[in-house]
Amino acid sequence: MIKVSIVMGSKSDLEVMKNCMDMLKEFEIGYEVRILSAHRTPVESHEYAVGLRERGIQVVIAAAGGAAHLAGVIAGTTTLPVIGVPIETKALGGMDSLLSIVQMPKGIPVATVAIGKAGAANAAILAAQILGVSDAKMADRLQDYKKSMAEKVLEDTNVETYTGSN
Amino acid sequence: MIKVSIVMGSKSDLEVMKNCMDMLKEFEIGYEVRILSAHRTPVESHEYAVGLRERGIQVVIAAAGGAAHLAGVIAGTTTLPVIGVPIETKALGGMDSLLSIVQMPKGIPVATVAIGKAGAANAAILAAQILGVSDAKMADRLQDYKKSMAEKVLEDTNVETYTGSN
Amino acid sequence: MIKVSIVMGSKSDLEVMKNCMDMLKEFEIGYEVRILSAHRTPVESHEYAVGLRERGIQVVIAAAGGAAHLAGVIAGTTTLPVIGVPIETKALGGMDSLLSIVQMPKGIPVATVAIGKAGAANAAILAAQILGVSDAKMADRLQDYKKSMAEKVLEDTNVETYTGSN
Amino acid sequence: MIKVSIVMGSKSDLEVMKNCMDMLKEFEIGYEVRILSAHRTPVESHEYAVGLRERGIQVVIAAAGGAAHLAGVIAGTTTLPVIGVPIETKALGGMDSLLSIVQMPKGIPVATVAIGKAGAANAAILAAQILGVSDAKMADRLQDYKKSMAEKVLEDTNVETYTGSN
Amino acid sequence: MIKVSIVMGSKSDLEVMKNCMDMLKEFEIGYEVRILSAHRTPVESHEYAVGLRERGIQVVIAAAGGAAHLAGVIAGTTTLPVIGVPIETKALGGMDSLLSIVQMPKGIPVATVAIGKAGAANAAILAAQILGVSDAKMADRLQDYKKSMAEKVLEDTNVETYTGSN
Amino acid sequence: MIKVSIVMGSKSDLEVMKNCMDMLKEFEIGYEVRILSAHRTPVESHEYAVGLRERGIQVVIAAAGGAAHLAGVIAGTTTLPVIGVPIETKALGGMDSLLSIVQMPKGIPVATVAIGKAGAANAAILAAQILGVSDAKMADRLQDYKKSMAEKVLEDTNVETYTGSN
Amino acid sequence: MIKVSIVMGSKSDLEVMKNCMDMLKEFEIGYEVRILSAHRTPVESHEYAVGLRERGIQVVIAAAGGAAHLAGVIAGTTTLPVIGVPIETKALGGMDSLLSIVQMPKGIPVATVAIGKAGAANAAILAAQILGVSDAKMADRLQDYKKSMAEKVLEDTNVETYTGSN
Amino acid sequence: MIKVSIVMGSKSDLEVMKNCMDMLKEFEIGYEVRILSAHRTPVESHEYAVGLRERGIQVVIAAAGGAAHLAGVIAGTTTLPVIGVPIETKALGGMDSLLSIVQMPKGIPVATVAIGKAGAANAAILAAQILGVSDAKMADRLQDYKKSMAEKVLEDTNVETYTGSN
Repeated sequence: MIKVSIVMGSKSDLEVMKNCMDMLKEFEIGYEVRILSAHRTPVESHEYAVGLRERGIQVVIAAAGGAAHLAGVIAGTTTLPVIGVPIETKALGGMDSLLSIVQMPKGIPVATVAIGKAGAANAAILAAQILGVSDAKMADRLQDYKKSMAEKVLEDTNVETYTGSN
Repeated sequence: MIKVSIVMGSKSDLEVMKNCMDMLKEFEIGYEVRILSAHRTPVESHEYAVGLRERGIQVVIAAAGGAAHLAGVIAGTTTLPVIGVPIETKALGGMDSLLSIVQMPKGIPVATVAIGKAGAANAAILAAQILGVSDAKMADRLQDYKKSMAEKVLEDTNVETYTGSN
Repeated sequence: MIKVSIVMGSKSDLEVMKNCMDMLKEFEIGYEVRILSAHRTPVESHEYAVGLRERGIQVVIAAAGGAAHLAGVIAGTTTLPVIGVPIETKALGGMDSLLSIVQMPKGIPVATVAIGKAGAANAAILAAQILGVSDAKMADRLQDYKKSMAEKVLEDTNVETYTGSN
Repeated sequence: MIKVSIVMGSKSDLEVMKNCMDMLKEFEIGYEVRILSAHRTPVESHEYAVGLRERGIQVVIAAAGGAAHLAGVIAGTTTLPVIGVPIETKALGGMDSLLSIVQMPKGIPVATVAIGKAGAANAAILAAQILGVSDAKMADRLQDYKKSMAEKVLEDTNVETYTGSN
Repeated sequence: MIKVSIVMGSKSDLEVMKNCMDMLKEFEIGYEVRILSAHRTPVESHEYAVGLRERGIQVVIAAAGGAAHLAGVIAGTTTLPVIGVPIETKALGGMDSLLSIVQMPKGIPVATVAIGKAGAANAAILAAQILGVSDAKMADRLQDYKKSMAEKVLEDTNVETYTGSN
Repeated sequence: MIKVSIVMGSKSDLEVMKNCMDMLKEFEIGYEVRILSAHRTPVESHEYAVGLRERGIQVVIAAAGGAAHLAGVIAGTTTLPVIGVPIETKALGGMDSLLSIVQMPKGIPVATVAIGKAGAANAAILAAQILGVSDAKMADRLQDYKKSMAEKVLEDTNVETYTGSN
Repeated sequence: MIKVSIVMGSKSDLEVMKNCMDMLKEFEIGYEVRILSAHRTPVESHEYAVGLRERGIQVVIAAAGGAAHLAGVIAGTTTLPVIGVPIETKALGGMDSLLSIVQMPKGIPVATVAIGKAGAANAAILAAQILGVSDAKMADRLQDYKKSMAEKVLEDTNVETYTGSN
Repeated sequence: MIKVSIVMGSKSDLEVMKNCMDMLKEFEIGYEVRILSAHRTPVESHEYAVGLRERGIQVVIAAAGGAAHLAGVIAGTTTLPVIGVPIETKALGGMDSLLSIVQMPKGIPVATVAIGKAGAANAAILAAQILGVSDAKMADRLQDYKKSMAEKVLEDTNVETYTGSN
């Protein structure tokens, strides 16, 4: 079952979004990945967004860089929650992507996460959290993931102790 | 039934978050509002976050300004989706609030919306969308809201026509 | 004859875009003004953009603020030149609007002008320049406008002379 | 026939502007390329700008980095549409170039495109769009280009489908 | 004797540049003030810049806001030292003016001072310092000014003393 | 007993620094306030900094705006901890003050707090914390202050509960 | 004796914080290093912060990048002085880390130092200065360090002299 | 004869300032280069600044990065014109250096040039222009330099001409 749709504006975004796909797999959440551009394929993007809920998709993750309109454009059509991933850009570091995605007008939210790879992975976890609202098994997996993150940090928590001279 | 928790760092954030509360009411979504500070009431914030899921809360909306840690700190404890609202700041316009909320590390997403009032209202709509994933009635309300937004824009769409000279 | 289409995301943008409309009138260029939102009225925005060339429109001017997608979305549909006017925003001064409009990906340019009122007026002049490429009368008007601007500056060019002590 | 003039402040900008020249060739639009500096060759820049319209040039594309005055200075002289390409800079990523080009005062617009290579290519497409206002063949080429862009995206649109566990 | 030329892009800059004129008077340095625009009066700006040294002018102070090209354009023509004053802007606070003035390419420096009124006054003092290189009387006046500034600060240096409880 | 020295570049900073003085009084910490400028009174600033430790001063709080050098200059002379308060500026909101204070080179730290009034008050609390390292009574006062802050937040923590329709 | 606690959000911060540890060793100040995350190990971070003063720790140094909440969260619990080190980030250079750490609300200061390695070393020196308030031997070491820094600069102060032609 | 003093905060700035030294040699202007730090050698920096005018130095060029106080501190002591060169920084690209140098308070100007190598070279040319105010031979050299810059640009001005298809 496909519950999450990942869309991105360009194949070059795949390197970053791989982090999102891997995390969804870790949570065993079915997904599909589509290259769709708000600007190059406006008709197909719109049609794709229109059909999402009916096809059983529950969350959309949209990644784009620069004047990053994809997430906003999909959020303008569907009533599903849309998560936006700002892709880092060479000139401005992704500040352009971030502002283009997060500063949406009243009425059409985009759930924006961090710029780049951390954001891509977090988009998947946020999708899991959204599914977990009504899916107890997913909520448990999230709890386990949280626990294992903590354990991994604590394993190495003691780095060094130095006893000074006075 | 209380489904959404709204937390904010200071009573002074209420003026902005009123836009969130009004929108939740428009969607008839039960909510509670708490003033809690990641820095001034760390213990209470943590305890509050721990108990959220058990109490039936399904989505958290956290607003803060400046070094805005509240959303991130709650997201560190609960596995519910946490929506972050960056409050505008006098010195830096809210760029500090935005970056403090959105740039979360891998593992702990915060679903960030726009700075200020538009973001506050959109946090409520995003909460409705998250609830709407498994609540057909809410999905319908979202569809109606989308339709009424469009109608309101289209009512006044024709502003002026001027026929030039050539 | 309507040659220029002015679209904007919200009625509140009219105060700024009045500067554009006034300037088009000064150049006697026919225009129409539509409120259309890339996010609130995606279908109507698309349909409007599709029909522009056929209806004889030659240039589009699109104004929006924040995550300003309107210009980019219209440029994704029409092959007419699209001029983008970034509206000033309260929190970030319009830096968000500017980056959302100007940082378009390869293939879909938006001709971006300055933030706010100066940009709105300049969008009209740029439209006149585009029409003036194949319209000698318009080119003459532009030359006259340039001349009168210079004259107005030069009228008051001598402000003050102070003869110091040594 | 030469319809587009490309000017740039330094030979080092050629690497970026190659993307503009290639795109103009793709649209079979005649162009000339000149190295001219608003600061190092002010007289020649001015004289070159004065003569443009008479020589049949219809659009100017000006690229510069840092305190990028070339586009604005040419727009101060000619009444042809001037497209500005902000060159990326080492220290500030091109934010300096962008603001120096786009924030023009009322009366003298510069049609600004994205920073760097995408902007350079888009300057050429924008020039084609401007020519296409009165040139049906160019309008058709633009339509074909748009179509082929979409097809290229759609070819690879389906990247991966993963069926999760529940 | 007129030793300093003050040029500015618009009469609206006079309010800020009044601080420059007042300070030049305080140093009894002769000056003239001209409204000249790099974009609206390019020919006159150039001619004015060409004639400066011959007319005995020794320092130029140029103020402009937004895409502030005036200082750079004059520095491209004259070999006199050119001081640039970035005017504060409504949308971006003068960051656009500052970067447009200071980020000059190799070969054509502009001596940039602070944004706004402090910068305007400092432009006058910098002009006095430049004249003071070869004018011992001016150097003395600068020394006196420095001394009186210090005295004024020290007059009020002791604001309050509070003796705590332990 | 005077334990804290507050220095600021200009009398106009007093309005902000009042928040610092009030907080020091709340902690009953003796202080003196001096107007001293790194640029206008370099000799006096240096002499003042040289004598601080000998006079029993234990912490320095330095406030300045714009190119805010005062804290750094004092930290270059004394080995006491120096706390820097960035004053908000009209043009750039205090980003200039913040970067001028915080980005100190290796060897000469300045303990920087938030821009403006919150930072001014926090400078006092940080001073109390520094004194509290070796002063158990001060540590107790800090604990009390922390407790009373929490109580004040918790008094009003329950703002509103709304029971939605489903 | 352990007087300083160094905490950081991730093992990857160790490369930068090595500069802090080396400097503490130079001052012979005992320290311990812990990996603790405000988000991944909130309970352990809190418990660690609660116990610090009792264990004899006198200063905390907390390093984190992006939405850097660690320093603020620890400062919310302990009344010891907390020094924050903003870690450089790939996308935004550390501007996100800096603002997340420095812009703390009234009541909970974090003593923020420069982004990256210089800041890490300076955090150690600031800790030494704080200890030096009540530790004359440490104050002497700081004076020696200051002196040796000056000597090292002055050793190479004369780089080159060139006698021009006139 | 030594007419220009170049000071910089650290030996690592020499790589950038080499561009300044080379340009001064090109203009045959005598200079000396000193490593001096506003923070590490405050006394020596002050003493050096005090003696400058008496020793016949006519212009000071000060380079520093980050919280770049050197230029401002020297300008606080001498009445000679001080030129500030902002050094590029790893984290913030030199925006910190630029703002720390340019945003000086009323009364103490620093003549700021561009970030990095272009700025370093331009500092030398600006020094030549300042000397050229009262030195006709220097003014001639500047005119020659301007001419040769123009010639070098014009040599390669014609890059390519492409005759399109229609």
